[in-house]
Amino acid sequence: QMRYNAFLSGDDTAPAGVSRLRSVHDSSINDRSGFSLRRVRLAFQGDISDRVSLYLQSDFGSAVTNQAGSERREHFAQLRDAYADISLDKRKTLRLRAGQSKVPYGWENMQSSSNRLTLDRSDAINSAVPGERDLGLVAYYTPPSVQKIWDDLGHDGQKLFGNYGAFGLGVFNGQGINRTEQNSGLMKVAFATWPFRLDGLGDAFEGQVLEVGGSAMLNEVQPETRNGSVSTIAYKDNRAGLHAILYPQPIGIQAEWNWGKGPQFDVATQSIRTKPLSGGYVQMMVRLPSDDFGALMPYARWQHYRGGWKASTNAPRLETDELELGLEWQPWKALELTVAYARMKRAEADERRTGRAEGDLIRTQLQWNY
Amino acid sequence: QMRYNAFLSGDDTAPAGVSRLRSVHDSSINDRSGFSLRRVRLAFQGDISDRVSLYLQSDFGSAVTNQAGSERREHFAQLRDAYADISLDKRKTLRLRAGQSKVPYGWENMQSSSNRLTLDRSDAINSAVPGERDLGLVAYYTPPSVQKIWDDLGHDGQKLFGNYGAFGLGVFNGQGINRTEQNSGLMKVAFATWPFRLDGLGDAFEGQVLEVGGSAMLNEVQPETRNGSVSTIAYKDNRAGLHAILYPQPIGIQAEWNWGKGPQFDVATQSIRTKPLSGGYVQMMVRLPSDDFGALMPYARWQHYRGGWKASTNAPRLETDELELGLEWQPWKALELTVAYARMKRAEADERRTGRAEGDLIRTQLQWNY
Amino acid sequence: QMRYNAFLSGDDTAPAGVSRLRSVHDSSINDRSGFSLRRVRLAFQGDISDRVSLYLQSDFGSAVTNQAGSERREHFAQLRDAYADISLDKRKTLRLRAGQSKVPYGWENMQSSSNRLTLDRSDAINSAVPGERDLGLVAYYTPPSVQKIWDDLGHDGQKLFGNYGAFGLGVFNGQGINRTEQNSGLMKVAFATWPFRLDGLGDAFEGQVLEVGGSAMLNEVQPETRNGSVSTIAYKDNRAGLHAILYPQPIGIQAEWNWGKGPQFDVATQSIRTKPLSGGYVQMMVRLPSDDFGALMPYARWQHYRGGWKASTNAPRLETDELELGLEWQPWKALELTVAYARMKRAEADERRTGRAEGDLIRTQLQWNY
Repeated sequence: QMRYNAFLSGDDTAPAGVSRLRSVHDSSINDRSGFSLRRVRLAFQGDISDRVSLYLQSDFGSAVTNQAGSERREHFAQLRDAYADISLDKRKTLRLRAGQSKVPYGWENMQSSSNRLTLDRSDAINSAVPGERDLGLVAYYTPPSVQKIWDDLGHDGQKLFGNYGAFGLGVFNGQGINRTEQNSGLMKVAFATWPFRLDGLGDAFEGQVLEVGGSAMLNEVQPETRNGSVSTIAYKDNRAGLHAILYPQPIGIQAEWNWGKGPQFDVATQSIRTKPLSGGYVQMMVRLPSDDFGALMPYARWQHYRGGWKASTNAPRLETDELELGLEWQPWKALELTVAYARMKRAEADERRTGRAEGDLIRTQLQWNY
Repeated sequence: QMRYNAFLSGDDTAPAGVSRLRSVHDSSINDRSGFSLRRVRLAFQGDISDRVSLYLQSDFGSAVTNQAGSERREHFAQLRDAYADISLDKRKTLRLRAGQSKVPYGWENMQSSSNRLTLDRSDAINSAVPGERDLGLVAYYTPPSVQKIWDDLGHDGQKLFGNYGAFGLGVFNGQGINRTEQNSGLMKVAFATWPFRLDGLGDAFEGQVLEVGGSAMLNEVQPETRNGSVSTIAYKDNRAGLHAILYPQPIGIQAEWNWGKGPQFDVATQSIRTKPLSGGYVQMMVRLPSDDFGALMPYARWQHYRGGWKASTNAPRLETDELELGLEWQPWKALELTVAYARMKRAEADERRTGRAEGDLIRTQLQWNY
Repeated sequence: QMRYNAFLSGDDTAPAGVSRLRSVHDSSINDRSGFSLRRVRLAFQGDISDRVSLYLQSDFGSAVTNQAGSERREHFAQLRDAYADISLDKRKTLRLRAGQSKVPYGWENMQSSSNRLTLDRSDAINSAVPGERDLGLVAYYTPPSVQKIWDDLGHDGQKLFGNYGAFGLGVFNGQGINRTEQNSGLMKVAFATWPFRLDGLGDAFEGQVLEVGGSAMLNEVQPETRNGSVSTIAYKDNRAGLHAILYPQPIGIQAEWNWGKGPQFDVATQSIRTKPLSGGYVQMMVRLPSDDFGALMPYARWQHYRGGWKASTNAPRLETDELELGLEWQPWKALELTVAYARMKRAEADERRTGRAEGDLIRTQLQWNY
């Protein structure tokens, strides 16, 4: 997945102490970037018995800092997923997943990046689980009737949310992907989603599917601090969210919102506090398959978030409003080209800078799927 | 391989300067851990001609420190094995192994972790080659009669020590796995093991096999020091050891012991000295295969070690006494669940802390084999 | 690829401030090395449609510094190549390559290490693109008649330069492999090479092929500086070079030279300046295939370089003169053993040391190909 971001206009640089236009999702949005590799993933999977299957995914998109002096080097291999799925019944409706895997919170978080239309996940939903994964145990249950609807949608070419369950219940370390656990408490997460066929509502809804659901998490987290260590205080990090998706045939709508409280840097007291947070997104998309030159999918997404970003040093407050208009073109099955225009207004994820930055960007992404 | 360690009681924390209960083998034995991935390994192998075969194994269990400030990040990919086997005769009894591979010292060190019953190797045997591997050249010779006995044991489901030879002779860098070599001297290692069929001793010994052997190494090593560099002095690091294994059918005994001298921090002079070391373990195990719910293997191991741990900063002295009672259950071929109770008395591997810590732990491990 | 370097004589150590004999290509040329793994590469490739093929290559030869204190750890996995090839016509003569891949500058740079006779690339040609790769977009065009000549040479067992094109035109970030881009300017590179059949020149030239070509690049680069950050000044880094290869049947000649200017530390002003650079190599080699004990290839190479090395801190000046006499033996297809004698005269790549060091080395390399 290669990207090229260009500023049309906006606050690409700023005096010290003032926010520059940066995104927690794409470090190549800055004043001196060229091409970047956002994801270089390699996955291995296999069924090793009737009941046990394995999945291992690594990413070559990780940088290691402090190399020559304080310089960083890019593209080291780091683990994303490493889990075993143990089926508790023969029909594989109930599975226990052990290892590092996605945390069942937020529909968009669980959807694979290769299936997502927008370039990045939304700040509001992703702030619950930056990196989307953690180490733990999770049980997934999918009734056969739900699996049938998803299989039908998949055959139709819809962008589903992946190989998870309709219901998920899990415990995780809760400190974040690839971080050393800091307390013996566990994060508890619950997730439910249910697709409804709308055929009964009349001819206009022939074949349409609406999926609704929600998720909730209870956690305590210790953010990293400016002096190079980890906060000794475990902050409450509790949330609940809702999601709804009308699959595009040909017009779709997708929306998520979540509310809660979590660690956030308080400028007045110059310390991290547990504070309220909320935000989400609304997205519209159109599917235009064609036989001759591949599928086209124009989309528009508006997102909003007010709250802390726990994965960054000192859990800085984000204040995001963004509109993204994009077009995804899939000339062959293996290749996707996305061009997007984004109008962003963001606070930089650095508690030492204040205010918000604005800008207009043209972003392009070429994605090839392994 | 995922673990969850819980303290029943014991010295999980301690004032500065006093040992806490920690293990050099499992960094998740502490007061604030949850789930941990001890090993995430991916191996590639292949015969590329009649005479040459390759093996490459990487591990996603490596952490990289000094990332955000002094924070560490987990699960980077690092090399374990990368070697070529060159058969010098057609029957493959004599092989030359070039590259990074296991050092032939200690039976338990050479046994694969996937075959080992206990959660960790013993301090005494593993202190010879922490990480078990180094870069060099080694010749292995296995007489066909010995290979026949091992093949028979393997078909019977016994936990063998792996694809090595009855006799091994090698030269290695000697500084330790994935470390930069510090002197032009080479480590010399020799290993021999021989299985005897006990059928001749009477009906009670029908099918029983006893394996005995020993190993020796001559090395000079330069441990890392507290100021962030490597000792300029190369310390003598010479050892010899013995091992004996009665394969469990159904009751087995396994024991190893080794003696020698090596670098060890001397508290009185506050410097590293070459000092004597000794230790080993005795283990009993029972194999209870069943057709209905997989194989059960209860085991008990007592281990003892007094000596330095050269892989840690300043080669601190370990004083380990530990009893581990465990039960391994293999419901399917691909999956192993081990639950163990351990009563440990250990010095922490940090020369700035004195005394020994005690504790009782319940440790669980879920292992899936690729 | 495992190496063992030994000094016959020479400046392996030196007082502070004076050059020791070191090479930018092989960090194990020093006074305290033993075995080293120069390359441990693993590649994945596949055609995912008629038009799109993927290539991903990682290397376990990367060290990560600043681990225990300032110590480094070896053998982490880092990305080398990750690109998608998109064929723009059905005959695959015109391809667009997107991602991290080799920069088309210098014949020797583009030749795979597994095909190269000499142990390392030459300083002069490799100084254009240390690491040979960068992130960007490049178009390759190969006329079918040229592809035919290369295919014939390949079937004959010649060491070609790999899966590139006769003409290449690309834009890249230009900061170097796996480094964070520092400016929004792009590096522009052009490459052309053309093989001529010499059969028409008379019987003595039956089956002989001469390949000639050249390459050019325009770039701006910001070297790393001694205080642990990156120079804020973008230095001009422009070059042009020529190459000629007479494929060995049985005697061959290969030569490359390049001229230009680039960043170089200026001792008088103690700062980096844009300064002229030039250098190259001339190589002779003989191919002696045999049915009984594999192919033998003796070779001799003389190389010369005067100019900066932009990948090292402060872009130090190199002053290299080296003669390498070697013999490559390939007993089986998968295994190559190279023994070389080198007489080197080099400035150390450290601007704090002055003068040049001399030495005679015996270098051995065992290479197994995956």
